[in-house]
Amino acid sequence: MKIKTSITLSEDLLTAIDERSQQFKNRSGFIEEAVRSFLAQIHKQEVDAKDLAILNKHAERLNQEAEDVLGYQLIP
Amino acid sequence: MKIKTSITLSEDLLTAIDERSQQFKNRSGFIEEAVRSFLAQIHKQEVDAKDLAILNKHAERLNQEAEDVLGYQLIP
Repeated sequence: MKIKTSITLSEDLLTAIDERSQQFKNRSGFIEEAVRSFLAQIHKQEVDAKDLAILNKHAERLNQEAEDVLGYQLIP
Repeated sequence: MKIKTSITLSEDLLTAIDERSQQFKNRSGFIEEAVRSFLAQIHKQEVDAKDLAILNKHAERLNQEAEDVLGYQLIP
């Protein structure tokens, strides 16, 4: 379902939106697409941050394991 | 200058915006940020497409040049 809402945007932004909104039907279509893209980007950043936190939490053990593995390497 | 405008957005999108809009002051702040990010992304894609067109236009000559350079390589 579509819901009507009022927002206030900077003038330069509205101009830029209107210049490109034909590709997206209209102003609302452009903003819909922009918000979906931005939400996806935020989601990706959150997932990346969680992954990094997990890696950092186990960094010491993972580094020890890597050192250990490297210890088995030989030049053939 | 800020301008007030009415838009219609999907209900699920408005819910998602409202869940995150505190970080961006309010609904308008969130949408402003999303649109700026989306415009930057579109701009980058256009620049990349132009670069690619230039590369493709000169592909044959660039490939010949690369072949020529590789001809001078020796294993030391």
